[in-house]
Amino acid sequence: MENLPLVVLRPLLILLAFVLVAQAAAHDPLPSWNAGPVKQSIVSFVTAAADKDGAGYIAPDDRIAVFDNDGTLWSEQPIYFQLAFTLDRVKAVAPQHPEWTTAQPFKAVLDGDLAALKGGEEKALVELMMATHTGMTTDEFAAAATNWLAGARHPACDCPYTDRVYAPMLELLSYLRANNFKTYIVSGGTIEFMRAFAEQVYGIPPEQVIGSTFATRFRLGDSGKPELVRKPIIDFVDDGPGKPVGINKFIGRRPVFAFGNSDGDQQMLEWVAAGSGPRFAGLVHHTDAQREYAYDRMSKIGRLDTALDKANAMGWTVVDMSRDWATVFPRMGLRQANKGDQP
Amino acid sequence: MENLPLVVLRPLLILLAFVLVAQAAAHDPLPSWNAGPVKQSIVSFVTAAADKDGAGYIAPDDRIAVFDNDGTLWSEQPIYFQLAFTLDRVKAVAPQHPEWTTAQPFKAVLDGDLAALKGGEEKALVELMMATHTGMTTDEFAAAATNWLAGARHPACDCPYTDRVYAPMLELLSYLRANNFKTYIVSGGTIEFMRAFAEQVYGIPPEQVIGSTFATRFRLGDSGKPELVRKPIIDFVDDGPGKPVGINKFIGRRPVFAFGNSDGDQQMLEWVAAGSGPRFAGLVHHTDAQREYAYDRMSKIGRLDTALDKANAMGWTVVDMSRDWATVFPRMGLRQANKGDQP
Repeated sequence: MENLPLVVLRPLLILLAFVLVAQAAAHDPLPSWNAGPVKQSIVSFVTAAADKDGAGYIAPDDRIAVFDNDGTLWSEQPIYFQLAFTLDRVKAVAPQHPEWTTAQPFKAVLDGDLAALKGGEEKALVELMMATHTGMTTDEFAAAATNWLAGARHPACDCPYTDRVYAPMLELLSYLRANNFKTYIVSGGTIEFMRAFAEQVYGIPPEQVIGSTFATRFRLGDSGKPELVRKPIIDFVDDGPGKPVGINKFIGRRPVFAFGNSDGDQQMLEWVAAGSGPRFAGLVHHTDAQREYAYDRMSKIGRLDTALDKANAMGWTVVDMSRDWATVFPRMGLRQANKGDQP
Repeated sequence: MENLPLVVLRPLLILLAFVLVAQAAAHDPLPSWNAGPVKQSIVSFVTAAADKDGAGYIAPDDRIAVFDNDGTLWSEQPIYFQLAFTLDRVKAVAPQHPEWTTAQPFKAVLDGDLAALKGGEEKALVELMMATHTGMTTDEFAAAATNWLAGARHPACDCPYTDRVYAPMLELLSYLRANNFKTYIVSGGTIEFMRAFAEQVYGIPPEQVIGSTFATRFRLGDSGKPELVRKPIIDFVDDGPGKPVGINKFIGRRPVFAFGNSDGDQQMLEWVAAGSGPRFAGLVHHTDAQREYAYDRMSKIGRLDTALDKANAMGWTVVDMSRDWATVFPRMGLRQANKGDQP
């Protein structure tokens, strides 16, 4: 080969280049999305953002994309997955809390009788969160979340909760990153619960996870070892109007791309959409009782009401899950193939 | 050229490779650092971190480096630069506050008589910060900080405050990044003041700046335009024990490399140093009255007392500015060449 003149190699190289270009054109970065205006709006935006000579160009530093988590990147039904963790955690640590067998809201959880909390759900939730998410070091909490995610099963699929992520959104995250977007989670869920799986499941590193936080305190623990302890004090609620606040605090730049699914995402979408230059604001509308769930204006979980009106008024992209997603859940789940994942 | 056989090109390519390797070996990434154990401790750590086969190897994802700002990356004398901004800002907006001509602490600032605040400095500082850093949108504050930085002059050099960054630390930031470390600021200063210059001056993007924060609120402003308003409420104090808390909140990983210069950095350094695997903890000791300032245990600004004892006890790297830095300030300043920048 060493004596092969370059003039002989050149036609081969040109041929190879043609093959590679043709392959790239044939490669659909979003195979789980059905063709239509929604898919087109995403592809057009991203293609334009990367086209240096076009009107839709966005400088790489400004390519910040933010995603809500519950109901946008993974499912939030029949209950928020972090609530499932909370309830399981109450049961797991109950042996160390004999007083819980008689004290609400713990008794209701241990008895499997959540109806007993009716009317006081919100207060109960805060109490349950405090009891399960605080009072330990950050390392201890991370271990509890990781262990739960490894063992717990979602009732609809008898598969790990992390299998209930949306295949189209995983593709979208990858597609954005391939085009030099930096992808963030901006969730009402607590930051350290999400960090327990976000990198492995979404490819989103801990420093790109924004969420609600409990206060933590530094202390020198046993034998002077520095550690951070989680306190039963709400530090920040990253929901609704808190989302643009959290984005500003953590990122310090206004994103150009945002996706949500509920009224809790409205202000984030408004804030992103109101920036200058090209902007993308999207909502996932859960319309698919067959493959996932159908809910919107009247749902207690992930209510989508005023944000849907706003999206329609502003021309934001609204995903009709039933129409726009060829696949809902990825094929990784052992049992999902039996669940009629394809339409 | 096209017919030139590869066999003829090969010796030339090998020669070129030798030249490049030799150049790389001759290139000192830290020319503003004098040779000695301090410089050696940095180079050894970074070299080992990047050596996949060595005991000091650190996976690229874990290469997180955190730096205090005031007194570590740029000077903090004769007063914290953000305090200089605060005092100038009081004067700038005083015409809109006629009541300030008689009300303390504003009167003292306008009269140039800070001695009048004696005994109540801390309370006065909070009031002055509130009055100058809050009550406007985030965009308005960013503009005020940017404008000030563009026009204000440091008294010692009659040069921009951003010229009072330390050349050795700029080199260190670049050196770390060249070895795939992600560099962060973790400062007691407020986050949005630092974001006004951190990217341009340090190459540190907004999302890698951690600092103290005021509360902000989302609102729909004039004609329904979404905006974030800064409130006179302290949200988070990123100093002392707050630094590891801030790092955990924003980054979610324990850094492997940390640099500070005062007791306010002690807990950050302790926390970083206590992690498993290779760790680097460093302090800048201001020993150079000639080229900068000399201060430590008794200083009101940037006191270095207990952290110095801890550093000595733990074997952390302590920079003796006078001994270890060949250059203090970069050559960009117009007047710095006259200030005896070289020892």
